[in-house]
Amino acid sequence: MNWLEHSVMARKGVAKGKAGEHHEIRIADQGAFHYVYGPFAEPVLKVSPGAVVSVETHDAFEGKITSESDKPSERLNFPYLNPQTGPIHVEGAEKGDALAVRIISIKPRGPQPVGTTCLIPEFGGLVGTGNTAMLNAPLAEVVKKVRVDETGIHWSDRLVLPYEPFIGTIGTSPEIEAISSLQPDYYGGNMDMPDVAPGAIIYLPVNREGGYLYLGDCHAIQGDGELCGVALEIPATVELQIDLIKGHGNSWPQLETEDMMMFIGSARPLEDATRIAYRELVRWLALETDQSEVDAYMLLTMCGKVRLGNMVDPKYSVGASIAKRYLK
Amino acid sequence: MNWLEHSVMARKGVAKGKAGEHHEIRIADQGAFHYVYGPFAEPVLKVSPGAVVSVETHDAFEGKITSESDKPSERLNFPYLNPQTGPIHVEGAEKGDALAVRIISIKPRGPQPVGTTCLIPEFGGLVGTGNTAMLNAPLAEVVKKVRVDETGIHWSDRLVLPYEPFIGTIGTSPEIEAISSLQPDYYGGNMDMPDVAPGAIIYLPVNREGGYLYLGDCHAIQGDGELCGVALEIPATVELQIDLIKGHGNSWPQLETEDMMMFIGSARPLEDATRIAYRELVRWLALETDQSEVDAYMLLTMCGKVRLGNMVDPKYSVGASIAKRYLK
Amino acid sequence: MNWLEHSVMARKGVAKGKAGEHHEIRIADQGAFHYVYGPFAEPVLKVSPGAVVSVETHDAFEGKITSESDKPSERLNFPYLNPQTGPIHVEGAEKGDALAVRIISIKPRGPQPVGTTCLIPEFGGLVGTGNTAMLNAPLAEVVKKVRVDETGIHWSDRLVLPYEPFIGTIGTSPEIEAISSLQPDYYGGNMDMPDVAPGAIIYLPVNREGGYLYLGDCHAIQGDGELCGVALEIPATVELQIDLIKGHGNSWPQLETEDMMMFIGSARPLEDATRIAYRELVRWLALETDQSEVDAYMLLTMCGKVRLGNMVDPKYSVGASIAKRYLK
Amino acid sequence: MNWLEHSVMARKGVAKGKAGEHHEIRIADQGAFHYVYGPFAEPVLKVSPGAVVSVETHDAFEGKITSESDKPSERLNFPYLNPQTGPIHVEGAEKGDALAVRIISIKPRGPQPVGTTCLIPEFGGLVGTGNTAMLNAPLAEVVKKVRVDETGIHWSDRLVLPYEPFIGTIGTSPEIEAISSLQPDYYGGNMDMPDVAPGAIIYLPVNREGGYLYLGDCHAIQGDGELCGVALEIPATVELQIDLIKGHGNSWPQLETEDMMMFIGSARPLEDATRIAYRELVRWLALETDQSEVDAYMLLTMCGKVRLGNMVDPKYSVGASIAKRYLK
Repeated sequence: MNWLEHSVMARKGVAKGKAGEHHEIRIADQGAFHYVYGPFAEPVLKVSPGAVVSVETHDAFEGKITSESDKPSERLNFPYLNPQTGPIHVEGAEKGDALAVRIISIKPRGPQPVGTTCLIPEFGGLVGTGNTAMLNAPLAEVVKKVRVDETGIHWSDRLVLPYEPFIGTIGTSPEIEAISSLQPDYYGGNMDMPDVAPGAIIYLPVNREGGYLYLGDCHAIQGDGELCGVALEIPATVELQIDLIKGHGNSWPQLETEDMMMFIGSARPLEDATRIAYRELVRWLALETDQSEVDAYMLLTMCGKVRLGNMVDPKYSVGASIAKRYLK
Repeated sequence: MNWLEHSVMARKGVAKGKAGEHHEIRIADQGAFHYVYGPFAEPVLKVSPGAVVSVETHDAFEGKITSESDKPSERLNFPYLNPQTGPIHVEGAEKGDALAVRIISIKPRGPQPVGTTCLIPEFGGLVGTGNTAMLNAPLAEVVKKVRVDETGIHWSDRLVLPYEPFIGTIGTSPEIEAISSLQPDYYGGNMDMPDVAPGAIIYLPVNREGGYLYLGDCHAIQGDGELCGVALEIPATVELQIDLIKGHGNSWPQLETEDMMMFIGSARPLEDATRIAYRELVRWLALETDQSEVDAYMLLTMCGKVRLGNMVDPKYSVGASIAKRYLK
Repeated sequence: MNWLEHSVMARKGVAKGKAGEHHEIRIADQGAFHYVYGPFAEPVLKVSPGAVVSVETHDAFEGKITSESDKPSERLNFPYLNPQTGPIHVEGAEKGDALAVRIISIKPRGPQPVGTTCLIPEFGGLVGTGNTAMLNAPLAEVVKKVRVDETGIHWSDRLVLPYEPFIGTIGTSPEIEAISSLQPDYYGGNMDMPDVAPGAIIYLPVNREGGYLYLGDCHAIQGDGELCGVALEIPATVELQIDLIKGHGNSWPQLETEDMMMFIGSARPLEDATRIAYRELVRWLALETDQSEVDAYMLLTMCGKVRLGNMVDPKYSVGASIAKRYLK
Repeated sequence: MNWLEHSVMARKGVAKGKAGEHHEIRIADQGAFHYVYGPFAEPVLKVSPGAVVSVETHDAFEGKITSESDKPSERLNFPYLNPQTGPIHVEGAEKGDALAVRIISIKPRGPQPVGTTCLIPEFGGLVGTGNTAMLNAPLAEVVKKVRVDETGIHWSDRLVLPYEPFIGTIGTSPEIEAISSLQPDYYGGNMDMPDVAPGAIIYLPVNREGGYLYLGDCHAIQGDGELCGVALEIPATVELQIDLIKGHGNSWPQLETEDMMMFIGSARPLEDATRIAYRELVRWLALETDQSEVDAYMLLTMCGKVRLGNMVDPKYSVGASIAKRYLK
């Protein structure tokens, strides 16, 4: 029997995890992209729980970096970066609920070479930045365009990397804020967490009526931390199933796969992101397995896993997880 | 001769630092307060450079904590905290300019005891918080109401503290974001920096047409770091003179007094806030005194001063300054 | 063919990765344990490169926590914690070399229940500590004794965890410092990195003549971050093969397995530990695969992996690695 | 009446704050300097409580940087940096006591130009370092030699800075560790805190019999944070009065002047250093003024002061203080 039938989505979803009506958001439907996660936009689509939606996303540069001779600093116009498709309004969603978003598939979209990565001045994990402000000269700008299909990533003549796609940026609207799509936070956003991939369900806190789901920034592959600041960015077609969990009450994004349950925290410094993720997991584990928080804390000391999503965005993102086989 | 005549405001302001028309924003004029710094609000007032504005602000709790037996967690409704008066639209302000805001006076407003401080669960510098997530039990909630007038603060039978008022939260609108008034950032906001006091001029980056000046959260006194998270909060009447500096181009708030020039950075961890403030100061000093960045860096190693504003808000705020007597 | 024949140890070791003479250090041989990594101790054993040494280690509490009714704060006498066996002097080792230590096996030692974990006041990842100093009350002390053998860990009636042993603390002596065995650093020490396990080779920088290898603190299992501060601590018998790599010149510990190459950084905050580990890996990868540092940086952005060792010790430890299949 | 008569030293010292026998440690007496704070050295002098000692210290470079054309990276031999005079054994000092060290005077020593500052690669507050590891190219090395006397510091033709000397590095021995004199910690060490100046008394925790007082690294002037990593370093003659406070029990250095009481914390990130300092101050204030920790916490929220010593050393140092006039 499929694990999905035992997922939180199936057990608690308004649509009981069953797929409902199919919808599409194509680039032409979207019109202008959004650069903030907030409540001030009009929904591009309204759906009922259970809806399956095929969403076209643009790459993080909105397609403006077209050649390896481009200079990112000339092509990009901050803060109009990381364009998001959406928002999708989910019927019945209210503050305190969670959207359950199952990721069915992610396919690259558009002409080859479809993948882009680059070095942007004062951005990245091993260079001085606007926050970790240094007097050192920045690294030179570099653009790399890469052929990507579902069979692999042609990194160089010698090296083909596996196609391991995920959604870099996905989340709901804050209640009253409108926050740059470059930032991850309690509502999701730019977490750059490779586990937000086909096969996973992410549970996103709802902060306002309708939830307002945004997404974008798909990556063909990314290492832990998104080290230079830019993964292999692709325009994509993403297929999602969206359910609604009333009163789920998670404070931070929760992610489920066949094998594990994860919570994702975003903060600086990195230990605070990790503390958030682990505290959410402690509390969930204590409830789920009917043990004390202290017992859950000690068990996670033995078998908790940590995944570093990004350490380059305005907040850093960390997932803390436990294998389902230890939920006894 | 008055130092103001040599201030950046006088030398570069559109109104040359001269006081212009007088305006008022009373609580009744304001109507609903704002809880975000953003471009989506309608201006409550439009002024020309040079305008002198008398602004009534509410305390950070919007007056909801009225007694020492109140529980903050019951009275306060997150995220509707730290109410801001404004925004004030400044004629001619465009992205890349700076608003120069001279603080003329801050007077407590309303019935005694006018000052409030408290302990809020999971908030403060020496307790676990939502970000520095802990399993320890929170401290008990406490409210303290204090009589405040311009002659002093009646902290206890034995101890009278001096009245050292300043504006805890002041800033301009981001270009496309709307960010909680609890947060400080490049546009100002909730810096909780005691130097933002009568006698100082603060230069705030303009990010959108009209600038959109917001303010609130006056404090009767505050120690460095705003340790427990809540200073002595007062409703106040603030008198400001607002000028406009075209093309000033500062990336972060700059503050000038008779004796010193400061830049204020906000980030986590605290060393990043300090790096931002000092890098801005290095660059300004190099230009101002016609020396290299390296020479400015070495001089600040000898005589730079650091002030900790807050280490409790979503970002921490630090000012780095140099005495004007060393500008040779 | 065995991967070991292509390991750095086999290719560059003085003994060419060949096993030499066999030695033993039993508890009785050791006499007094060491609580610092430093040059002031007398070697308990001198070996030639290639030596295979069977080492008995004590648990991190030196066996003083014997019952679930013990209070750690009463039993433990700081700083006399985390007792280390050694030092082992390696013939020919000089500053600038590396000790290659292959971990052959780790077996629990002593009467059941052989495993101990506990909560210690003001210590752990989700509580206030001596550094992250809080006013919150500490959690209550807890001791848990657990039966451990090579078939599994009897965590509770319902849950058996796998036996996944590793060496929590291993390293060389600093040149002139003597540093608590509770701390990890550039010479190794208390990294609490689960990859330091049977099947791996760790390359430790030599800082003084003879290298002075210390080890202790074996864990039967540990999650990422060693969350509560104390893994499942066991006394153990460890079998090691020790080789010497002249002029290896690594600044931080390097770890090799059949499938990957890792560098381990230790620092606070956690992003600095990660930066150290990744920068070492960037530089090694650039040399190893004859590409520029920038190309290595971009490749690791796609496929680098991060492992959190501990975020509870005086410095936090992070491993950054790349799969050998990408070394093209 | 002199404030010293009411100092902690006078009230609690074994010698009651009275000056006793006079001693000298000249460079020739010292012989080899020490580069670690530890228990493995032989005392250069033994004194009784009350002793007044005139100590010659070398500059942080041991005089090896003699010209502006020197390259620090060629002249300096890590870890043999920051040479310390001492240790001084204080009769009767035992673990749990504190040494009270009153700083009487600091005079520059040796031929002009006696002051040295410089830029050292990968060291400093606004550059990538060994811990905040970056791929950016380091800044070029610079050496600046400066004439210093007690009337002023001849920084340039235009600018004379005031002579504001203090002891950069002073502390006691750890119990079992020997830690680089570049590092500050609970025992003092390389705090680079400008308040450790003539007119102040510093209370240093005793960790072993005799206390073992070390000092060195005098600065003619330094800004907050010691921004580029190197203050204006001078060889000096320091006059100290040393008393002993039995069972004082402070966990971190405490500093008293006529006007204020400070505690100094050292840690990374900077918020942890600040938390340490403020928690010590909260606890001391609660005891001293017979109020609860929560009341002390709230009072310091109103009037605590923070001083940044350094944010360049292996740990960052912060002082938190309260004015004596608020001790009611």
